[in-house]
Amino acid sequence: MADSQVTQSSPAARNVYVPHGFQEHAIDLGEITMNYAEAGARDRPALVLVPGQTESWWGYESAMQLLQDDFHVFAVDLRGQGRSSWTPKRYTLDNMGNDLVRFIALAIGRPTIVSGNSSGGLLACWLSAYAMPGQIRGALLEDPPLWSSTTEPLYGQSIRQAIGPMFEMFSKYLGDQWSIGDWHGMREAAKQHRHPLVRMMGHGNAVEPRQSLKEYDPEWARAFHEGTVALSCPHERMLAAVKVPILLTHHAHSTDPESGALIGAYSDLQAKKAQDILASTGVRFEYALFEDAAHSLHQADPARFAKVLRAWAATL
Amino acid sequence: MADSQVTQSSPAARNVYVPHGFQEHAIDLGEITMNYAEAGARDRPALVLVPGQTESWWGYESAMQLLQDDFHVFAVDLRGQGRSSWTPKRYTLDNMGNDLVRFIALAIGRPTIVSGNSSGGLLACWLSAYAMPGQIRGALLEDPPLWSSTTEPLYGQSIRQAIGPMFEMFSKYLGDQWSIGDWHGMREAAKQHRHPLVRMMGHGNAVEPRQSLKEYDPEWARAFHEGTVALSCPHERMLAAVKVPILLTHHAHSTDPESGALIGAYSDLQAKKAQDILASTGVRFEYALFEDAAHSLHQADPARFAKVLRAWAATL
Repeated sequence: MADSQVTQSSPAARNVYVPHGFQEHAIDLGEITMNYAEAGARDRPALVLVPGQTESWWGYESAMQLLQDDFHVFAVDLRGQGRSSWTPKRYTLDNMGNDLVRFIALAIGRPTIVSGNSSGGLLACWLSAYAMPGQIRGALLEDPPLWSSTTEPLYGQSIRQAIGPMFEMFSKYLGDQWSIGDWHGMREAAKQHRHPLVRMMGHGNAVEPRQSLKEYDPEWARAFHEGTVALSCPHERMLAAVKVPILLTHHAHSTDPESGALIGAYSDLQAKKAQDILASTGVRFEYALFEDAAHSLHQADPARFAKVLRAWAATL
Repeated sequence: MADSQVTQSSPAARNVYVPHGFQEHAIDLGEITMNYAEAGARDRPALVLVPGQTESWWGYESAMQLLQDDFHVFAVDLRGQGRSSWTPKRYTLDNMGNDLVRFIALAIGRPTIVSGNSSGGLLACWLSAYAMPGQIRGALLEDPPLWSSTTEPLYGQSIRQAIGPMFEMFSKYLGDQWSIGDWHGMREAAKQHRHPLVRMMGHGNAVEPRQSLKEYDPEWARAFHEGTVALSCPHERMLAAVKVPILLTHHAHSTDPESGALIGAYSDLQAKKAQDILASTGVRFEYALFEDAAHSLHQADPARFAKVLRAWAATL
């Protein structure tokens, strides 16, 4: 592709953005400037929504419409997403988690409920374990890739046996900070890929990347595929450190019979082990299996997501 | 050795500590409990002192005596040092730096001067680059191992050509969380080691580890030798992000003519490159070459250290 609008520039200089229904704000957190949108009244419980990989804050736009009467809602772009800063070589769960710690301290300033999807669900878990005392009231982990997003999982499939090959393609064809940007090459390679998840999640004949992908730093994909993102954050230690109530959801998933690869965010074994560890902490947690749900329930069915979140938050 | 007082237990359970002249306190930072000592009046400028590897807060005890009339002084134990929490698999500059961000926010609550020695000097640099806005007034980097404490340095010798082999021995003979504790084996192996720095820094015939080493989690040594501690914190990016005045000191150093190994904390080339990058940021910085000074000046000559720090702090 090598479209000059998309390649290499820092977020502020890139003319790839589109308008949205909620106003966006920027806050200086020290290392990064974080972009976010806010809705709802200040006297409602604070709620932070954390997007998944290749999503920006506005993936929650429909859900925010439904949640803004009940919550003071903040939806954020993480480093390397949307309009927040890019930080080459510095994409780790710990750095992203500490960005959220600072965001909650500086932009919200009171105990907060957090809900995150996919890698955002890992960060919701991270916050429930490692945030500053009193910052987090509870965490909804929406289909988080527990162990399955790491290169050396204690349990079950690694990222190389799950979505990793797709991230490898993002890294190879798009490049850190869009330094390659070969959209056509990636699209065609995905059609032939050995891994069923890559074929399923290919981009057909789309002439350009979808909007949220344009806003994303492909170095995220490399950090996940190479394993550096979670190298110093083993998931079993994070789960064992959880200190506040958890709702863990698990959406449609299966195993490819040909290869044993995981089709989905995490396996039944990984769900079982996560529950075992959470049970050992003594915190209150619930596990909700939604076998018919898309990975990103909050985008595919915002009404159902809002209903689940609202009902669980009422118990905190 | 396999002394049950020293092996494997978490810091709180280990009976290895000795009394000191300043009272110690503990603060919950979310993931870790940080141990620290405090001296001086609250109306004086706040100063945080960060020890180096295999040192605890009380390495600054003599310096604190000299500084307490001029500063509100805090000396800390980092994760894996002294009485602070051990965090297996989670020793990174970013996690240690964010512990200090939280400490400054929760225990000090106002703009702070920071001074750190060796790896503590790297963390002083980290804070000057990545702390929350307004937290840091200036940073004294006391003989920091710039690039020379990483496995893939942009400039000069790597840790494997510097102190790395000694850390490799700590890791091999003492083990993560003192899981091996073979003090005798390490002491004897150091005497024969190919690397001159390891022979120089060996422990002679000492029958047990020195006090500060007993208080240290040897997993630190592995994290440095294997390179995971700075894997997502390239030093050139950290230096380029510095936002406040810096005093960079450089102590006795040389190159072993036989091997090219670095005898010291960082080389002249590394000092030159650090200055070039700092100059490009536009921040005020000074470089002070103390060719006769020990690596840990604040321990070897507290009066000289206090004089240097006091004079520089007066200019902030």
